[in-house]
Amino acid sequence: MRGDERLANQLRDVTITRNYIKHAEGSALIEVGNTRVLCTATVEEKVPPFLRGAGQGWITAEYSMLPRATEQRTQREATRGKLGGRTMEIQRLIGRSLRAILDLKDLGERTLWIDCDVIQADGGTRTASITGAFVAVVDALTNLRKRGTLQKAPIRDYLAATSVGMVNDEMLLDLRYKEDSIASVDMNIVMTGSKRLVEVQGTGESATFSRQQLNEMVDLAETGILQLIALQTEVLGDISSVMKKQA
Amino acid sequence: MRGDERLANQLRDVTITRNYIKHAEGSALIEVGNTRVLCTATVEEKVPPFLRGAGQGWITAEYSMLPRATEQRTQREATRGKLGGRTMEIQRLIGRSLRAILDLKDLGERTLWIDCDVIQADGGTRTASITGAFVAVVDALTNLRKRGTLQKAPIRDYLAATSVGMVNDEMLLDLRYKEDSIASVDMNIVMTGSKRLVEVQGTGESATFSRQQLNEMVDLAETGILQLIALQTEVLGDISSVMKKQA
Amino acid sequence: MRGDERLANQLRDVTITRNYIKHAEGSALIEVGNTRVLCTATVEEKVPPFLRGAGQGWITAEYSMLPRATEQRTQREATRGKLGGRTMEIQRLIGRSLRAILDLKDLGERTLWIDCDVIQADGGTRTASITGAFVAVVDALTNLRKRGTLQKAPIRDYLAATSVGMVNDEMLLDLRYKEDSIASVDMNIVMTGSKRLVEVQGTGESATFSRQQLNEMVDLAETGILQLIALQTEVLGDISSVMKKQA
Amino acid sequence: MRGDERLANQLRDVTITRNYIKHAEGSALIEVGNTRVLCTATVEEKVPPFLRGAGQGWITAEYSMLPRATEQRTQREATRGKLGGRTMEIQRLIGRSLRAILDLKDLGERTLWIDCDVIQADGGTRTASITGAFVAVVDALTNLRKRGTLQKAPIRDYLAATSVGMVNDEMLLDLRYKEDSIASVDMNIVMTGSKRLVEVQGTGESATFSRQQLNEMVDLAETGILQLIALQTEVLGDISSVMKKQA
Amino acid sequence: MRGDERLANQLRDVTITRNYIKHAEGSALIEVGNTRVLCTATVEEKVPPFLRGAGQGWITAEYSMLPRATEQRTQREATRGKLGGRTMEIQRLIGRSLRAILDLKDLGERTLWIDCDVIQADGGTRTASITGAFVAVVDALTNLRKRGTLQKAPIRDYLAATSVGMVNDEMLLDLRYKEDSIASVDMNIVMTGSKRLVEVQGTGESATFSRQQLNEMVDLAETGILQLIALQTEVLGDISSVMKKQA
Amino acid sequence: MRGDERLANQLRDVTITRNYIKHAEGSALIEVGNTRVLCTATVEEKVPPFLRGAGQGWITAEYSMLPRATEQRTQREATRGKLGGRTMEIQRLIGRSLRAILDLKDLGERTLWIDCDVIQADGGTRTASITGAFVAVVDALTNLRKRGTLQKAPIRDYLAATSVGMVNDEMLLDLRYKEDSIASVDMNIVMTGSKRLVEVQGTGESATFSRQQLNEMVDLAETGILQLIALQTEVLGDISSVMKKQA
Repeated sequence: MRGDERLANQLRDVTITRNYIKHAEGSALIEVGNTRVLCTATVEEKVPPFLRGAGQGWITAEYSMLPRATEQRTQREATRGKLGGRTMEIQRLIGRSLRAILDLKDLGERTLWIDCDVIQADGGTRTASITGAFVAVVDALTNLRKRGTLQKAPIRDYLAATSVGMVNDEMLLDLRYKEDSIASVDMNIVMTGSKRLVEVQGTGESATFSRQQLNEMVDLAETGILQLIALQTEVLGDISSVMKKQA
Repeated sequence: MRGDERLANQLRDVTITRNYIKHAEGSALIEVGNTRVLCTATVEEKVPPFLRGAGQGWITAEYSMLPRATEQRTQREATRGKLGGRTMEIQRLIGRSLRAILDLKDLGERTLWIDCDVIQADGGTRTASITGAFVAVVDALTNLRKRGTLQKAPIRDYLAATSVGMVNDEMLLDLRYKEDSIASVDMNIVMTGSKRLVEVQGTGESATFSRQQLNEMVDLAETGILQLIALQTEVLGDISSVMKKQA
Repeated sequence: MRGDERLANQLRDVTITRNYIKHAEGSALIEVGNTRVLCTATVEEKVPPFLRGAGQGWITAEYSMLPRATEQRTQREATRGKLGGRTMEIQRLIGRSLRAILDLKDLGERTLWIDCDVIQADGGTRTASITGAFVAVVDALTNLRKRGTLQKAPIRDYLAATSVGMVNDEMLLDLRYKEDSIASVDMNIVMTGSKRLVEVQGTGESATFSRQQLNEMVDLAETGILQLIALQTEVLGDISSVMKKQA
Repeated sequence: MRGDERLANQLRDVTITRNYIKHAEGSALIEVGNTRVLCTATVEEKVPPFLRGAGQGWITAEYSMLPRATEQRTQREATRGKLGGRTMEIQRLIGRSLRAILDLKDLGERTLWIDCDVIQADGGTRTASITGAFVAVVDALTNLRKRGTLQKAPIRDYLAATSVGMVNDEMLLDLRYKEDSIASVDMNIVMTGSKRLVEVQGTGESATFSRQQLNEMVDLAETGILQLIALQTEVLGDISSVMKKQA
Repeated sequence: MRGDERLANQLRDVTITRNYIKHAEGSALIEVGNTRVLCTATVEEKVPPFLRGAGQGWITAEYSMLPRATEQRTQREATRGKLGGRTMEIQRLIGRSLRAILDLKDLGERTLWIDCDVIQADGGTRTASITGAFVAVVDALTNLRKRGTLQKAPIRDYLAATSVGMVNDEMLLDLRYKEDSIASVDMNIVMTGSKRLVEVQGTGESATFSRQQLNEMVDLAETGILQLIALQTEVLGDISSVMKKQA
Repeated sequence: MRGDERLANQLRDVTITRNYIKHAEGSALIEVGNTRVLCTATVEEKVPPFLRGAGQGWITAEYSMLPRATEQRTQREATRGKLGGRTMEIQRLIGRSLRAILDLKDLGERTLWIDCDVIQADGGTRTASITGAFVAVVDALTNLRKRGTLQKAPIRDYLAATSVGMVNDEMLLDLRYKEDSIASVDMNIVMTGSKRLVEVQGTGESATFSRQQLNEMVDLAETGILQLIALQTEVLGDISSVMKKQA
């Protein structure tokens, strides 16, 4: 049993609240245990300069934490005047993951801006961001479809993410901050509804890991991600207007 | 009747949720109509360099808006690499207002960091920040008192704020964004529980105003602020451990 | 009697030197006691992007202090790499105040850049900037009229500003730095020639103030501002080519 | 056969030149085909603030590309005034990878600064940086041992890295830029001499990948990394003074 | 005859006004034709970190232009967020030139901050800055001597500077902006009262120059600089308390 | 004899390796003793905004040092977020020097970007940059001529640079870092193949120099520069396709 009464292979309680923000084209508040991330999707009817005239769309993500999302107050990046390396890495990961399940040609010449703002942090903020952002994207695109401005269904598959780690030689699913901070190996996995891998990032900061552990960690992540996708499916209901038909 | 079914002299519905964030020493989510601001108070057991050894404390505030708090997505100041003038002006106002009702000597050699993050914006975010921050400060100081680290009650009085404006020649209390953006005169007033003025900021961007209008606007603001302070009183309950006895 | 032999309700000696800078379309050196501010007005024959095609002009202001304008040398903002909050607040105030008496449609599609550079500071630099900038603007617009490029008279009224404060329970007009730094309440008022208010900014940093004090402070400011406008009138002479006829 | 006459599972020619820079405590120029990275290791006899008094050392890495390392000239990050996300991600990866095989306690209270500067880029610059940096670190530590300032052997194992990718449905080892830019899946693997994984970063930007492909890609990377470590062993000769004895 | 009725070898009219700023330890407004530079010298009773405990002082200079010093308004470097290359080059030149005639050991462990702010520019602002800064430095040091805090006379010699250039194949002394902007060769010379060279910076942007021209330009500059030093001598009067006795 | 067995008037060994970088239109690695600078020339088929439609080209230079080019590791300017004054001064010097021997009209509407990156520093990096950049420029232009895109020969003359300094009252050619750091006078000279001066920058930081010394230093520099140009001539071979015929 873990500190929060979970089994090693158990996710935390997850809640997804759609349409949390009235102004955004799509928005979702995702809560994974005490981690709370507000995800919004904004539609901009143009593409960045490098894609002008290319007949396709773009999706880009920004990530930030409120100063008191963390146990100790974190200085604002706006006050420091620049983004830290961790922030940049996470926002690149979120954008890349969503691009993997989006058909940018079918999105048309528009940009989706994804904003993931961590209201409260307790581990797993980047994976919660991806899981929540998927819901916001679906809602934003559904709205476009309803308004008739989006011609096709641009989404190829569901998308969710979770973490796995080695803590005191035990393999744990969905790490809280307390577990994450003492994990010898830390892995973030992003996966689709059809169990295809999108990102595998396994890191041993002070330790290394074996091929067998790599495989077991991906196995464990998969069980968690399928539960997250089941929740997305339940929360979103029918999304056939934006999801491509599976062959 | 205004667009949202209010009378000219009527506040929007206001809700204050205490302890919204588990990590912060004090926190409050304040909702004024569709405006939602998350206020936290952080206690740091040291003072900035210019006050070292001065035998007193300090309070400072930071303010920010999430990108999709607004109708059109606003670029992050962290991405632009610097704070805008509006942000700086607002965070200076929040800090100054709270300093007016705090006895910094009785606070002791510690710093209160106030963070006001606008989750959703619909006018009046700076005044809602002040009203909500007061609650977060009370809770943070009450916690210090309970832990026995704070010797005295450092708060002199309640504190709240609201806006008043001239819209189409009518004087309105507590402007929504839609009203604020067409107001010819805009005034923000910060006031204490004993009706003392802390800040009066009246501005005519494209118009001017008379002495009589100044007076009437302050009168109208006072009625709103007293209601806000009644709500703070109700939400906070007994705060005698941190509030100085009134002479 | 105050330290510099003034009565409580007395302005410092004020001098305005027109055309101080040969390159600028309009310029004025304003001296208020030991405070010296160089104000220039630059005409640019285009408007910022957000006003393109809107058939109106714009006015914007920048404010800065030379490092040794102050008693202790102040670090340059150019060296620090960013503007401070105080600077931003002041330049927003100057721009907003001038916009209140300018008819931007009659200005035509051009931008007025106001630069207020404090050569020597002894309190009241922001209000001196406004009073001096008005003169520079009049001269710049008069030059445009002479050249025939400006079709109409775009100025609605005279504009000047001064400060009032509570120092040791006494209400003083036009504070020097020494007075300002110990004032419990500090107020800046911007007013037109017809006694209409443009900005009222009253602030109690460590104290609060009553409704009656608010009124008395505005009364006192008015007496000072009318003297400043009398001086502007004298210095400028006939400005009927740029000043709209009063109804 | 690939464009440069290699088999799918074949590394490019690799050369490592030790002591390329006379000033640095350790340095190596690594050439992997046309990719050329200059790696230096600098010893600083102090640790960053967060480790003061912790009785351990630190290692940190910086990465940069010369403007004409690339086919099109790339703007300098110094000229842009900030590091890009890709640079930050790579320097975090290099530092983390080296920390995994370094015993920071045995390093003592000193910092190793790793600089990886790409002189010419043709794909695989981050993995070449890791492979080359290992050699620079060994040389820097060997010098410390010779001077008698380093008490123990702080290295746990050899360390090298390479890339694998899916290009036109074929799995290729050690991608050139031309291959990398059209790869549907891209994986970077960092591994030790005893075949333990340090980092696995698999990314599908516009495609996804299966569990089986993940396994085969790690297999293929392993064959390449073992050849790189054989080269390191040959180039470095006896490193027993800095390498811990294997249990 | 030149446009302003000068001979080729004639300086513009030069005026130096001492003690222009009441707050500064030393200050001088120097006017060279239409060029006006305000120079101040600030004494700080500590040295920069790299000189702590070295038993000597330091002198450093900053240079800036007001936006409307120039014919076209120049954007503020504070607004752009960084100093331009020209500014950095000039402030390095001013500091270096003054260091050449100051005995830093005899200055004691203090820093002289020189600020040169161009109020109006018409060519030769960097050389006017040096000539004016010398006067401000003498006054600041004389004040230190009077207060008894400075033990010795730290100045070795007078210091002044001027420009020379080739314009339409004619060699001109002390270029105005109009001449400078079309000069094929431009030279700035800094020289002491005993005709020793401190800086010679000759530049042909679109042309080159011969050895003979180099010599003639330095000759011509010398005649101008000796006149400037005569003016400094007259303006400053007896400076024996800060000037070392000449051997 | 100097520390490295040179006579006072002797250059260090100089090697120039052409085409060091495969991607660049022109590139040269220049080694002057232990100083090693990689110079590249990039051709961009457009001009900066201020020259659009002016019927001429442009040349601009950037300069940087790798962190371990120096004996002590130097912090990266990209990490600090801004260029230092020394860097800006040097890149302005390199650009200006090359412009003096280039006919910008005959270059056509294109920009030459020169990058000088110091791999290892031992004094004289700015003069080595100029000497090496000339070779890279010739190669880049020769390539343009071969491709037929450049109509005329835009180079007017050879160009090289060296340093001279006063060290312990002795005049030395081509200073190493060890000599440069104790020189009382330091001079950089840029000269053409026909012995015309392009830049003369003589600086006495803590000392001054006489007219006679100025002349002797330029004489000595000339002997060195002619040797450098002889080497350029040998390395480059026939450059008549890009060099204008001498009258």
